[in-house]
Amino acid sequence: MFRYEPPLRDIHFVIHELLDAESALRDLPEYAAWDRATVDQTVEALSRFAQRILQPLNASGDREGCRVEEGGVSTPSGFAQAYRHFVEAGWPRLACAEQLGGQGAPAVVFSAATESLYSTNPGWTMYFGTARGAYECLLAHGSPEQNDLYLTKIVSGQWTATMCLTEPQCGSDLGLVRTRAVPAEDGRYRISGAKIFISGGDHDLTENIVHLVLARLPDAPAGVGGISLFLVPKYLIGQQGLSLECNGMSAVAVEDKMGLRGSATCAMNFEGSVGWLVGKPNEGLRNMFVMINSSRVGVGVQSLGMGQAAYDSALGYARDRLQMRAAGGAHRPDLPADPIIVHADVRRMLLTQKAHVEASRMLVYWLSLELDREHAHPDAAVRQVAGDWVALLTPVAKAFLSENAYAVANLAIQVHGGHGYIRDNGVEQIVRDLRVAQIYEGTTGVQARDLLSRKVLPDGGARLRRLLDMVHEHARSADDEFTEVLVRLCAELEQLTAHVAEAAARDADAVGASGCDYLRVVGHLVCGHLFARAARLARSKLSQASPDPHYAAKIATARFYFERLLPEAWSCAQTARSGLSSLSTLSERELFI
Amino acid sequence: MFRYEPPLRDIHFVIHELLDAESALRDLPEYAAWDRATVDQTVEALSRFAQRILQPLNASGDREGCRVEEGGVSTPSGFAQAYRHFVEAGWPRLACAEQLGGQGAPAVVFSAATESLYSTNPGWTMYFGTARGAYECLLAHGSPEQNDLYLTKIVSGQWTATMCLTEPQCGSDLGLVRTRAVPAEDGRYRISGAKIFISGGDHDLTENIVHLVLARLPDAPAGVGGISLFLVPKYLIGQQGLSLECNGMSAVAVEDKMGLRGSATCAMNFEGSVGWLVGKPNEGLRNMFVMINSSRVGVGVQSLGMGQAAYDSALGYARDRLQMRAAGGAHRPDLPADPIIVHADVRRMLLTQKAHVEASRMLVYWLSLELDREHAHPDAAVRQVAGDWVALLTPVAKAFLSENAYAVANLAIQVHGGHGYIRDNGVEQIVRDLRVAQIYEGTTGVQARDLLSRKVLPDGGARLRRLLDMVHEHARSADDEFTEVLVRLCAELEQLTAHVAEAAARDADAVGASGCDYLRVVGHLVCGHLFARAARLARSKLSQASPDPHYAAKIATARFYFERLLPEAWSCAQTARSGLSSLSTLSERELFI
Repeated sequence: MFRYEPPLRDIHFVIHELLDAESALRDLPEYAAWDRATVDQTVEALSRFAQRILQPLNASGDREGCRVEEGGVSTPSGFAQAYRHFVEAGWPRLACAEQLGGQGAPAVVFSAATESLYSTNPGWTMYFGTARGAYECLLAHGSPEQNDLYLTKIVSGQWTATMCLTEPQCGSDLGLVRTRAVPAEDGRYRISGAKIFISGGDHDLTENIVHLVLARLPDAPAGVGGISLFLVPKYLIGQQGLSLECNGMSAVAVEDKMGLRGSATCAMNFEGSVGWLVGKPNEGLRNMFVMINSSRVGVGVQSLGMGQAAYDSALGYARDRLQMRAAGGAHRPDLPADPIIVHADVRRMLLTQKAHVEASRMLVYWLSLELDREHAHPDAAVRQVAGDWVALLTPVAKAFLSENAYAVANLAIQVHGGHGYIRDNGVEQIVRDLRVAQIYEGTTGVQARDLLSRKVLPDGGARLRRLLDMVHEHARSADDEFTEVLVRLCAELEQLTAHVAEAAARDADAVGASGCDYLRVVGHLVCGHLFARAARLARSKLSQASPDPHYAAKIATARFYFERLLPEAWSCAQTARSGLSSLSTLSERELFI
Repeated sequence: MFRYEPPLRDIHFVIHELLDAESALRDLPEYAAWDRATVDQTVEALSRFAQRILQPLNASGDREGCRVEEGGVSTPSGFAQAYRHFVEAGWPRLACAEQLGGQGAPAVVFSAATESLYSTNPGWTMYFGTARGAYECLLAHGSPEQNDLYLTKIVSGQWTATMCLTEPQCGSDLGLVRTRAVPAEDGRYRISGAKIFISGGDHDLTENIVHLVLARLPDAPAGVGGISLFLVPKYLIGQQGLSLECNGMSAVAVEDKMGLRGSATCAMNFEGSVGWLVGKPNEGLRNMFVMINSSRVGVGVQSLGMGQAAYDSALGYARDRLQMRAAGGAHRPDLPADPIIVHADVRRMLLTQKAHVEASRMLVYWLSLELDREHAHPDAAVRQVAGDWVALLTPVAKAFLSENAYAVANLAIQVHGGHGYIRDNGVEQIVRDLRVAQIYEGTTGVQARDLLSRKVLPDGGARLRRLLDMVHEHARSADDEFTEVLVRLCAELEQLTAHVAEAAARDADAVGASGCDYLRVVGHLVCGHLFARAARLARSKLSQASPDPHYAAKIATARFYFERLLPEAWSCAQTARSGLSSLSTLSERELFI
């Protein structure tokens, strides 16, 4: 049975050595107090919480799942108690604004600390994770009264919160939202409609739940420009505290999902529920999108955390499981067979996992630091540059890392063989839990369109130029074994971008035809660059007396990434280039007969 | 909710047009009666059975699973009744020898007909599928008495059968088998030991189960040369029919698996169970391997069947689901949004599924026909050539097709978005059911080693030469849009093979380092070749008056395969070539710190 050990050494390597977050945060007045010791203490403390409290509930939470009962949705045994511990320890406050009672941690610390939650119990963590999006929305657009009444409770963790977007007829296309909001007395509204896929829509962890609901006002225009955002609490606040009666809503079902079964994904009915407008009428979608980048980076953190758990588990098994002899002769003649880690194919699988996980950590932490710079740097020009990085890299981190982590999780099953296909070893659960990361917060296809249509093509390629310049500059100055490949891949990406831009000018559908493969090329360039930087740094440390063995391993992992994983970028570039040509020769009816 | 429609048109295309199975079977005296009409009736009849009887039990079988109860293992509701229908209709007899009461169908018909069983209910089909392996073992090595008493019952389906190989300490490495067989009275043996992962080890479908068990005789040498094969029935045959008492065995647990949950995968204890030797002592492993090729081709059929179901489901959903407008403007202004099939990225996913499924069908049916030739051609030289094809292509079909089908199933979730992640739409079940296809009957890594170490490298590349010659010859004679790529890929594979052979001569571990990527290169060459042949054939039919629209779609699908899927072969060749270089720079302890 798998036991989680937080990968503190690699977390430190990325935060302190690669990113030098302490210096970076010193330039951000709001976060200047987050020195190295504070960061390390925070990450380690939450990792230990995850290890001690959450990990033991992971398999049982999956088995038990959630149920709709008389009084509402019940979560798996132990979840509510773990949540109380979490609140008592003050963890919900971690990355919340200090004026609301938060601890004001920067995103880079939040990402590094919460990685462990997803490694140990992603189903449980969803209750906390979805509240985060609502927190950001309200922080940006809530009225002082809303913030005082509701947001402070979300900050403390006393209440959780949800985002109620999806409806049966609309997921990616929120313009089709039908839920209605009718003005009522005292500036209130009455909300009615059906929402689905609401994470934490109901549960027994907290006494109240704050729903942020997308709905249409009676006179709203059709489409995305007619959607408003409403705050709809499960229980209204009355003179004597919380009302005893539910505010006209109910979780009519808990979805029977492939994974994340400890997380109550609810189908909700609102029937005249009392709500308040958040922000201005018809600006709901725009207001909601303040949280889109951080929630997408959050999917990167999930992918990283679950990938790390899958890798750990596979590595442990590969060291213990005895099966066959090494090709070149027995390594352990004292045992009936060699541990399977001696087989090159098993090492290939483990290194694939290791390289993907370490690349994810570099990308996610870096991107989190750019979120911090965008939010808190005193210089507007620096904020602008950071915002460009966030804009460009967020869809890449969301889609590329969730796809890679899924491969990592599937490799954990493969390393375990038949023992990975049964539930006891916990790795098939990681596959099931991770599968949705390619879907929610915008599918891979949605991310790919965002990357090309909104981030790369419109500004004449300025954001992409910045990426290419950075890669070039480092590669040339390093002039090592990775330089030639990176320079060549930059050229390939540049040509590919021009090719896609031209195709898209002729036929807008070309973006969809090339997007997913294009995104993988960008992902490999970014991760290849990060590994080249990490390897250069590690090489510089090798000359130290008795250097930390982490450095030699980092260089070897970087080499593996370039030799074994990055080559996929070339075939993706080729398929991205083929664009619409094999997708549109026949009509849909003629093709799919 | 998904309804299965058997893909009869494409089945006919492959069997009759591409392979011309009727002529091929006419040359095999044993199968000469299987003319086109008989083949079509058989395939259609079993497909209808699958559609009517099995498909309705697929989701419920997954939900209910199997349970160990007082009297043995109980299967999901309806499974036993469906099995009775199956036996009454005579289906277990389909591909069994006529002298044993079978219908004597060739493998190509068996594959085409059973594809539908895996499309509709893979969990149920496992009970039938595992009996198949035992049938082949006994047919080859059973004594006349064993065949009379047991094999005829397996042929009729009255009893099922299992293969008891795996033990807790050994899966891929059967040399570690510990189960013991002690000689007893009357040429009997007493079998004692623990077996795991026994598909259909116990169930309530039939009154008896025949186990073929690998075990060691007291004086057996260590390793694979000391393993013998025993026939161990659940109930012994006495004077008054079946004994009332179980033959010293019990299913102590049903594994809680990721998928195939309708299939009872049992942990079995044998405690002095009475058994009989099958074949000679210490030749158990060799004797068992008579079924290895057909059971591996069987995994190809499973992958094909489940892939087809995943594709059908995604296609149906993509036509119905309305979400956003086509990039170039509304296709269905009469509806609130366009069906998602209008989006290029969705068409890309559907075509990826379609191309993989059609490639699988061509490869699996062709390989099945070679199994038939190897088995039944009167000319020994033809049998030899067919045997070479079977040897070379079986590991490719098993590994390449199971990996591709898993991608196809995952794309079905992706096309469904969040609706694919919940159980209602049935596609997440396909992912769970399919995951084990890359593991059982030899993992992908085991197949890759088999391909390189046993099939390609030892005979100086003669078998591979035959493949390259065939591809070359067709490509040159066709001289169409696919020729250049295929010729280039042949050259690449030839060089890669020389490269790997050289590396393996220096370090045997190099086979493991390159094997999985090497196998994918071979898989793409084979499937590319088959698509080129299919497209050439289809082009020749286009000149007919009002040609069947299947032909134009086939050409478009072939083009998609070459433009979008086959390019992966180049990056796989590159990673295969890198071999051990990034896997062995550091020791295991230094690398995985």
